[in-house]
Amino acid sequence: MTQDLVTAAILVIGDEILSGRTKDKNIGYIAEYLTGIGIDLREVRVVPDVEAEIVAAVNALRSRYAYVFTTGGIGPTHDDITADSVAKAFGIPIDVDPRAVALMRERYKAEDLNEARLRMARIPEGADLVENPISKAPGFRIGNVVVMAGVPAIMQAMLDNVARTLVTGAPMIVETLDARGTPEGLYAAGLGDIARHHEGVSIGSYPAFTTGGFANQIVVRGKDRAAVDAAVAAVRELIDRLVAERAPA
Amino acid sequence: MTQDLVTAAILVIGDEILSGRTKDKNIGYIAEYLTGIGIDLREVRVVPDVEAEIVAAVNALRSRYAYVFTTGGIGPTHDDITADSVAKAFGIPIDVDPRAVALMRERYKAEDLNEARLRMARIPEGADLVENPISKAPGFRIGNVVVMAGVPAIMQAMLDNVARTLVTGAPMIVETLDARGTPEGLYAAGLGDIARHHEGVSIGSYPAFTTGGFANQIVVRGKDRAAVDAAVAAVRELIDRLVAERAPA
Repeated sequence: MTQDLVTAAILVIGDEILSGRTKDKNIGYIAEYLTGIGIDLREVRVVPDVEAEIVAAVNALRSRYAYVFTTGGIGPTHDDITADSVAKAFGIPIDVDPRAVALMRERYKAEDLNEARLRMARIPEGADLVENPISKAPGFRIGNVVVMAGVPAIMQAMLDNVARTLVTGAPMIVETLDARGTPEGLYAAGLGDIARHHEGVSIGSYPAFTTGGFANQIVVRGKDRAAVDAAVAAVRELIDRLVAERAPA
Repeated sequence: MTQDLVTAAILVIGDEILSGRTKDKNIGYIAEYLTGIGIDLREVRVVPDVEAEIVAAVNALRSRYAYVFTTGGIGPTHDDITADSVAKAFGIPIDVDPRAVALMRERYKAEDLNEARLRMARIPEGADLVENPISKAPGFRIGNVVVMAGVPAIMQAMLDNVARTLVTGAPMIVETLDARGTPEGLYAAGLGDIARHHEGVSIGSYPAFTTGGFANQIVVRGKDRAAVDAAVAAVRELIDRLVAERAPA
């Protein structure tokens, strides 16, 4: 099913990201993935392994966006409190789920499913499981909140599995133009005029600093092909004119 | 000056991060930097180039943490609205600042300081400038909010410059132990017991998925050396015992 506009937020859960010990690789991946299936990522939050923080963030985000994707905190150790915190945010019970246990039995013998590992089978009542082909312990979806692992390879597999069940939006059309050496400060006024006169598109200017100085790109984004094309043509004309003006006579 | 506990948040501003076009490199860098100078990063948010979103996030974070570090949105183009949004969050005027213009004159001739470039000299009233040795347009600090560029090389230089002016905390002591092949599910119960019995430290377990299966590390963090050492000794004893139990007789 598709809708015109489907919004989302990401909630990254983990002390290790906030301490800098682990460099997050999930935000950029999920952002690009959602853009690809026409879902607009609107906000990201990173919070520590603290129940009250997770509960507050889940509730703030799920009331505001069509979907919330969480990563991290669903392993077997004492600092893995995401599932219980999400259940608390929804005000629903949570317990070891026989469906999750059955999935984990594909990897663990019955005698190896100790209390800690069974923590990974704790699923809020009424949630759908999100399968994990790599290490079996599943993620889940409750309401509009999708709970995934923090380990990138597992998160990516879970995202593939859950994506089929999501309402997606009209795909975003993205066109990137190279500013061909023109400094931002020279095209900023003209670009602002173009942005004001083209509704339904967003125009961004992104400098990157390279050894040769600034390399700027202008990105036009929108969901209507004609609107994007018109804005792209206007930007191209602007850059052509500025490049010609700067060329030696 | 140092205090026992100094908290911080990061606010990343930019549509390009949320669309996945640009992969953020600043969160991990700032997180590690702040940990190194004894400042506890407690929350990160990423918001789009939308004034109301930036204002709301700045106000939520600055009232809650000792410092807020923003990245992005201080260039010359129409989508660079961070400075004006921060001024609005504080309810103070903003205008072209002669000190910022003087810094920019080191790079730009007077006739090249057009209206767009002068946008980069817009600084909220009463703010201190944060110098930018690379492209000259400065960041600033107003109250407990530090506004920096999004381009990583420039952000890093600004962070170095502002760091000297910050109140820092007691440095975090971090000890990392390798689980030596022991699965999380086998040490989780023991690790939870250790965490419960050692106050003033936080103990995290971090699985990484490698081609050889899971490689787990246990991290003990705290500000008191004796407390950290005691927890580390307990964790080491736990892992030693579990490794011995699994070894063939």
